[in-house]
Amino acid sequence: MTREERYEHGMKVLEQVDGEAGQRIVNSLADTSPELGHQVVAWAFGDMYARPELPPRDRQLVTLGVLAALGGCEIELEVHINAALNVGLAPTEIAEALLHSAVYCGIPRSINATLVAKKVFAERGLLPITNVA
Amino acid sequence: MTREERYEHGMKVLEQVDGEAGQRIVNSLADTSPELGHQVVAWAFGDMYARPELPPRDRQLVTLGVLAALGGCEIELEVHINAALNVGLAPTEIAEALLHSAVYCGIPRSINATLVAKKVFAERGLLPITNVA
Amino acid sequence: MTREERYEHGMKVLEQVDGEAGQRIVNSLADTSPELGHQVVAWAFGDMYARPELPPRDRQLVTLGVLAALGGCEIELEVHINAALNVGLAPTEIAEALLHSAVYCGIPRSINATLVAKKVFAERGLLPITNVA
Amino acid sequence: MTREERYEHGMKVLEQVDGEAGQRIVNSLADTSPELGHQVVAWAFGDMYARPELPPRDRQLVTLGVLAALGGCEIELEVHINAALNVGLAPTEIAEALLHSAVYCGIPRSINATLVAKKVFAERGLLPITNVA
Amino acid sequence: MTREERYEHGMKVLEQVDGEAGQRIVNSLADTSPELGHQVVAWAFGDMYARPELPPRDRQLVTLGVLAALGGCEIELEVHINAALNVGLAPTEIAEALLHSAVYCGIPRSINATLVAKKVFAERGLLPITNVA
Amino acid sequence: MTREERYEHGMKVLEQVDGEAGQRIVNSLADTSPELGHQVVAWAFGDMYARPELPPRDRQLVTLGVLAALGGCEIELEVHINAALNVGLAPTEIAEALLHSAVYCGIPRSINATLVAKKVFAERGLLPITNVA
Repeated sequence: MTREERYEHGMKVLEQVDGEAGQRIVNSLADTSPELGHQVVAWAFGDMYARPELPPRDRQLVTLGVLAALGGCEIELEVHINAALNVGLAPTEIAEALLHSAVYCGIPRSINATLVAKKVFAERGLLPITNVA
Repeated sequence: MTREERYEHGMKVLEQVDGEAGQRIVNSLADTSPELGHQVVAWAFGDMYARPELPPRDRQLVTLGVLAALGGCEIELEVHINAALNVGLAPTEIAEALLHSAVYCGIPRSINATLVAKKVFAERGLLPITNVA
Repeated sequence: MTREERYEHGMKVLEQVDGEAGQRIVNSLADTSPELGHQVVAWAFGDMYARPELPPRDRQLVTLGVLAALGGCEIELEVHINAALNVGLAPTEIAEALLHSAVYCGIPRSINATLVAKKVFAERGLLPITNVA
Repeated sequence: MTREERYEHGMKVLEQVDGEAGQRIVNSLADTSPELGHQVVAWAFGDMYARPELPPRDRQLVTLGVLAALGGCEIELEVHINAALNVGLAPTEIAEALLHSAVYCGIPRSINATLVAKKVFAERGLLPITNVA
Repeated sequence: MTREERYEHGMKVLEQVDGEAGQRIVNSLADTSPELGHQVVAWAFGDMYARPELPPRDRQLVTLGVLAALGGCEIELEVHINAALNVGLAPTEIAEALLHSAVYCGIPRSINATLVAKKVFAERGLLPITNVA
Repeated sequence: MTREERYEHGMKVLEQVDGEAGQRIVNSLADTSPELGHQVVAWAFGDMYARPELPPRDRQLVTLGVLAALGGCEIELEVHINAALNVGLAPTEIAEALLHSAVYCGIPRSINATLVAKKVFAERGLLPITNVA
């Protein structure tokens, strides 16, 4: 596989999972760190996310846990809460995953992540939350 | 105790400690994660904060340390710096607690938390800081 | 529900999920912080984990993400990798979840968590990993 | 004040607060980073800890919060739980402070810090905990 | 050295490294925590940064790594990306350092830090990045 | 480039930088997460570390900053302090980089990383530290 083929493969995965939101982040990196944009697409999505060992819905549950715990990742959480909806997690499941994370990374991180979910759900007309996306 | 009684008990503690600021966060969670709002009130305040083993002033010193160290908790720090004032910590003591934290979690975390304190102190007419709240 | 009933309810959930490993941690807290042991059982398992909004397998995926990201949680990861196996995640799925976390919290955190998985898998005779628990 | 005077002043504060445990860490740095040992003594204790704006008991409450939240600071927590006892916090207050931190930084960090307290309390014959040091 | 001399010495180092941006942060602390401002100048720059054991360019590489990894340090990263340019790191080197950090602290932290670099580079007319500052 | 060629390329870089220590970590992952081992070699070293935009000495300064700040990365710090020596950083420069990190991520993280350096320096006969590797 050439470098370009790896990028194109990753872009297909990114488009299915993140839609426009992921693409916007990659574009925003073009003039400052084009290689970081390349690695997000070719490595994170093409090499890692695309692996069949875990389906997208499961990957998003792990990702929600990691991003909630890290903190300070509001931009990335916005992308990945959208992604979570795109791959089949219901709003109630996303809210519950972030509630669950409070046990392990504390209430403040859980609140911060939930307020990002509130924003995404509002933009997609999903409030108040129900168990159907 | 019923679930409702646990909530009401927690709400009384929260009102004494956090006043309006805590209530606003709980309200903001109502359409996205009502259970997280419930846990903040019933568990964090009703079960944990209310315990007599440590008085509120001591709890706020611990909380300032935790939130400064975590980073990315500006929303929660704002609530808890208000709470610290409400339970009897002077502005100079709060500023000193955040200065002290620099030794253990570094200058940037300490600066970030202190800038939240600056905002809260300004809103309450407490700048420049003195040792009386 | 009384305090004792909440504890007993939580203990049933903990036993199903964590088996002996969780019980050992709770026991180890008995002489130093019995209330922390109580909260782990009554709140973390009884109130939070037991909620039907997300099944145990999904909760463990979130938990693996949170614990990998936090770092320094080898004791808890050991409990929760055992729990992950107990609730139906295959070794390959657990390894993949921890591999996936590398994208978001970096290679060192992913390696550290994977080395805990290696220990747990070895103890349960599951090495080299396969996709059946 | 000369560099040596600043060091001597800090060493007096360190000896009052940390006793032997702090001294051991400083000694262990002598062949690898003598300047880090100097900064711990002259800056952390001499310049920062010694400030009268917050008494030692309050400083230890903040420190317990920071170290619990950071995670991976077992060595430092051991020193500072000893210090907390030295400056007048009872074992029950220390356990409660670490329990309280669970609300904000999660159960695993709280458990890890409490297990360090267990070790320190055991070494000083303070188990099971009581409210007298 | 008196307290004032230590401050003046630190201020000279800060001005060479951070220029106006560092001074603005110190000023913003004056009414809330003047001692924190003093410590930033006298200790962080005067005692630590000024040491000849590592030249400024090397210090900024370490600092970029620490701040990227901590997360939630956008204010400080802005100061230190400016500082990195001031002490001779080219925009491509800064972008590469932040790309490199992705391996160890994950893609989101690397993206967040790179977006701060994008802002600083834009303000200084350095976009699209080249290997000359 | 095939998957195997990417791996072989990365292994050459890893051997130059990390020597045996890096190889041991990759080997330890073979039965639990062979893909994580592959990514460490093919991606972290082959794709990222090998880029000419920043020389190995500079990369190690960034890496020391990231790993010190993350905490809980003693295994990885051991590998990367060895690597730092391998690519030309003197023991005094490594100790100074870790001392410098104390300003930004606090004294405990700096001490913990320095104690790993002490272990590595001792194994290589480099104590007490000098400015020649």
